[in-house]
Amino acid sequence: MAKELDFLTKRSEDYSRWYNELVVKADLAEQSDVRGCMVIKPYGYAIWEKMQRLLDDRFKETGVQNAYFPLLIPKSFLSREAEHVEGFAKECAVVTHYRLKTNETHDGVVVDPAAKLEEELIIRPTSETIIWNTFKNWIHSYRDLPLVVNQWCNVMRWEMRTRLFLRTSEFLWQEGHTAHATREEAEDRAKMMLKVYADFAEQVMAVPVVQGVKSETERFAGALDTYTIEAMMQDGKALQSGTSHFLGQNFGKAFNVTFTDEQNQPQYAWATSWGVSTRLMGALIMTHSDDNGLVLPPRLAPTQVVIVPIYKNDEQLQKVNAAVNPIVEQLRGMGISVKYDNADNRRPGFKFADYELKGVPVRLVLGARDLENGTVEVMRRDTLEKETRQLEGIADYVRTLLDDIQQNIYQKAKAYRDARIYECDNYDDFKARVKNGGFFLCHWDGTAETEAKIKEDTQATIRCVPFGFEQTPGTDMVSGKPAVARVLIARSY
Amino acid sequence: MAKELDFLTKRSEDYSRWYNELVVKADLAEQSDVRGCMVIKPYGYAIWEKMQRLLDDRFKETGVQNAYFPLLIPKSFLSREAEHVEGFAKECAVVTHYRLKTNETHDGVVVDPAAKLEEELIIRPTSETIIWNTFKNWIHSYRDLPLVVNQWCNVMRWEMRTRLFLRTSEFLWQEGHTAHATREEAEDRAKMMLKVYADFAEQVMAVPVVQGVKSETERFAGALDTYTIEAMMQDGKALQSGTSHFLGQNFGKAFNVTFTDEQNQPQYAWATSWGVSTRLMGALIMTHSDDNGLVLPPRLAPTQVVIVPIYKNDEQLQKVNAAVNPIVEQLRGMGISVKYDNADNRRPGFKFADYELKGVPVRLVLGARDLENGTVEVMRRDTLEKETRQLEGIADYVRTLLDDIQQNIYQKAKAYRDARIYECDNYDDFKARVKNGGFFLCHWDGTAETEAKIKEDTQATIRCVPFGFEQTPGTDMVSGKPAVARVLIARSY
Repeated sequence: MAKELDFLTKRSEDYSRWYNELVVKADLAEQSDVRGCMVIKPYGYAIWEKMQRLLDDRFKETGVQNAYFPLLIPKSFLSREAEHVEGFAKECAVVTHYRLKTNETHDGVVVDPAAKLEEELIIRPTSETIIWNTFKNWIHSYRDLPLVVNQWCNVMRWEMRTRLFLRTSEFLWQEGHTAHATREEAEDRAKMMLKVYADFAEQVMAVPVVQGVKSETERFAGALDTYTIEAMMQDGKALQSGTSHFLGQNFGKAFNVTFTDEQNQPQYAWATSWGVSTRLMGALIMTHSDDNGLVLPPRLAPTQVVIVPIYKNDEQLQKVNAAVNPIVEQLRGMGISVKYDNADNRRPGFKFADYELKGVPVRLVLGARDLENGTVEVMRRDTLEKETRQLEGIADYVRTLLDDIQQNIYQKAKAYRDARIYECDNYDDFKARVKNGGFFLCHWDGTAETEAKIKEDTQATIRCVPFGFEQTPGTDMVSGKPAVARVLIARSY
Repeated sequence: MAKELDFLTKRSEDYSRWYNELVVKADLAEQSDVRGCMVIKPYGYAIWEKMQRLLDDRFKETGVQNAYFPLLIPKSFLSREAEHVEGFAKECAVVTHYRLKTNETHDGVVVDPAAKLEEELIIRPTSETIIWNTFKNWIHSYRDLPLVVNQWCNVMRWEMRTRLFLRTSEFLWQEGHTAHATREEAEDRAKMMLKVYADFAEQVMAVPVVQGVKSETERFAGALDTYTIEAMMQDGKALQSGTSHFLGQNFGKAFNVTFTDEQNQPQYAWATSWGVSTRLMGALIMTHSDDNGLVLPPRLAPTQVVIVPIYKNDEQLQKVNAAVNPIVEQLRGMGISVKYDNADNRRPGFKFADYELKGVPVRLVLGARDLENGTVEVMRRDTLEKETRQLEGIADYVRTLLDDIQQNIYQKAKAYRDARIYECDNYDDFKARVKNGGFFLCHWDGTAETEAKIKEDTQATIRCVPFGFEQTPGTDMVSGKPAVARVLIARSY
C-alpha cells in the first residue's frame, strides 16, 4: 500500500506541486498543446457537470433563464464602456481573418490575406458588451423588466502564467446578466446571487467562504460594487471563488438601453452581472484533499460508493457477487451512485489506492470471511477510518455516513480556516506573519495608497470588506489614519 | 382573434419567410450584430436545454463520458489529415493576435502588432484534430480502449449565407469522439450512435427520419463512412439532422495514436465521431409548426400546459384561482410543467394567440360559467380542437392528452412524409417533380459523375443510401447503367 500512495508529493513538502500533481494524477485535467488551455478529462468534467446542474437549479429557483450569446465580440463594442475596455481589451484573443488557403508548397495551410475582416472580432473575455447591445432590442418598457438571463459558456483571457483550473486562458463558466428598472432592485439581485454562490459553496462544495465587498481597486472593470466569496486554501491563501457585480447604469448608458417607466419617462436600465467558473474546481480540490489524493464531498462525487471484493478463486468471487448485488441495487434505489469493481485486472491494494486518489467518499470491502460473519469493511475517505459493520442494514448506514462526511469535511475546513483568521493591528507583525498564510482582519483607512503599499510590501491584497462581522472603528495599521472598519487581507491565488 | 393571428406569413404563401418570422416572433432566436452569429433567446434555449438533457441521458446509457477540449486549434493540426484540411480549413475563424492596445487618439482600441502569435490558432470547426492529438497521450494499451468521449460546445464555420438554427457561423452542438481496438467495434459504435439519434428524433422530437449512409461525395472530410438521419420538412426538402462517422484509422495515423494489442503488437486506433447541433431546432420547428405558430412535442415543451382564467371582476378571479390552484399542484405532482397565467395586463384573446404562437401543447380555460358547471375548456395545440370536460379528473385527462399529442404529431409528420416518398425511374419525370419537394428513391449507378449531373440539373443531391428498405437491382435513370440499389434524392437545407 505504502508504495502505491507514495507517488504524490506531500502538501507539507510543496503545496503547489502537490496540487499540480493531484489534478493530473486524479485524471481531472491536463495541459493541452494549445498554450494556456486545458483539457478537462472525463473524471474532472463529471464533477463540473454536477456543479453546473446543482447551481443551475438554484439559479432557476430565483427566476433565472438561460440563453446563449455570440462567442465573438466586435472590437468596437469593448471601447463603449471606458473602464471595461481598460480591464479586458489588453488580454484578448483577436480574430482577424476568416479563411485559410493551401500554401505554395501544397503541404500546409496559411492565412488567406484576402479574407481579412473589416473589423476585428474578440473572443469574449466576458459578455457584458454583446449582451447589453442585445438587451437594447429587448427592453422598451418597465414591463419588460427585470430581465434575468444567464449563459453557460467558454471565455478566453490571454493569461501569461496559467495553472490548471485556477487560471487558464480558456475556461468554462456561467455569466448572469440582469437588467432592472430601479437601482435598489439591481443591488438586491447582485446581493442575492452572492448569497446563492455562498450557499452553494458551503452546502454543496463544503467550502466555507467569507462574503464581502471589494475595494474600489479590486472591483470588476465597469462595476460600482463587486461582491465576492473568498475561500481559504490549506496553505492559508485566499481563492476568490465567485463574484457578483452591481454595474449601475454604466452599460445601460454605454449601449443606450432605456425603458419608459410607469410615469412614461425614459430611464436607463440598471445592471448586474455575476459569475463562477471552473476555478471552483480548484477551490474544491485544494480545500479538502490530502496527501493520499482527492477528498470529494458526497454531493459532488461522481461515484459516491465503491465496493471491492476480496477473493481467492472464482467460487469465492461468485459468492461475494451474490452478496453485493442486492446492496448495489438498494443503494442505487436511494439515488446513491455505486461502482462495484470486481474486475480482475488490478489487485485490491491498487484499487484501494486509486479510489483514494479519486476521492470516492465511501469504500466497502467484502471478502470470504466477511461472508461467513455477515460483515463488511467500511472505509470513509475523509478520515480514512475503517470499521467492520453488519451487512444487514448497510445501505441505510452508508446513506447516513455520506451525509456525515458531507458535514464533516465542511466542519473540518471551517475549523481549519477559522483558526487562521487573525485580527491584526500592527503592520510589522502583519508583514512577518502574512507570508505564512491566513486571513488578516485589519483596519484600513480606505485609501488606494495604503492598499498599494500593502500589496507592494507583502504581495497580500485586500480581499474584501467582510460581511457578518461586527465592525468597530480604529486606526489604519499602515498609515495611522482613522479607519471605519476592518478589511480582510491575504495573499491570494 | 383573427387579427392577432394574422401577423405570421402563411406557409403556403412563402414557407421560407414563414420559418424566419416564426423563429423570431416565437422568441426562439435572433440575428446578432456579429455577422452570421445568432442569439438563442431564453424560450429557444429552454427547448435546446431539454434536448441536451434527454440526449445526454441516452448517450450515458451507452457508456459515453463527457469531457472538454480547447476551443482553439493550432493551424498545423488541420493539415495532418489530408482530406480533413480540405473540408474545413477554408471556412475558419483565425486568431492571429492576443492583445489590443489603446489607439493614438485614445478613443478606441487597435490590435497590438507586437502581440502576433507565432502560429495562428483556428476556432474549432470540429475537434477531431485536437482530440486525437490528446488521445495520443491517453491510449497505450488495448486496456485503455474503447475511449468513448463527448463534448457539448460551440463551434464555428464561416458561412456566407446563414439562417437561424439551420446554418449559422457559430452553433452549439455535441461532438462524440471514440477510439477502438478493432475496425468492427468502431463501425458498431458509429451505427449505434446513428440509432441513438434516430430514436431521439422520432421518440422525443416526434420527427420521423430516414437512416442511411452517405455517398462518397457527401461524406465527412476524413471519414470512410458517414451515416445520416434525414428528415423531411413541410416543403418536402430534406434536412440532414445528425451524422455519425466511421473514420477508420485516418486520425489514428495522422496523430500517431497507437496501442499494443493483446498479442503485444502495435496497432493504430480506430475512430468514430458523431454530432448533432442546434440545427435540430430547425428540424423541430419546421416539421410540426403551422400558420398559427409553433407546435411543440410535449416532451420538449418548456411549458406543457397553460391555464387561462376568464373573469369580469376580482371576486370571480378569486373563485377561479381557488379552483385552479389544486389542479396546478396535481399536474406538477405528475411532473408536468404548468403555467397559470392570471396576469391582468393582457386580454384572454391575446394570451390565447401568444400561447398558440409559442406552441404550448395544452390550454385550459376556466370562466365563471365553468365554475358553476364544474367544467373546463381544453384545447390541444396540435389540432386546435376544443372540448369541454368535467373538472373532476382533469389532471389525469391532461396527462393522457399530452401522450396522445406526442404520438399524434409524430404520426402526422410520418404520414405527411410517407406520402411524399416516391419511387422514380424516369429522369425527365424526376426533373419535373423534384423541384416541388419530396424524397425520390431512384436507382443510381454509383458514380460521382451521375451524382454531379443530378445536382447540376436539379440542385437535388443524394441524401443517402437508405436502410430498412428492400432493395432490388435496376437501371440508373440518368446514365442507363446498371445499378445495385436505389438512393434517396432530394433538395435539401
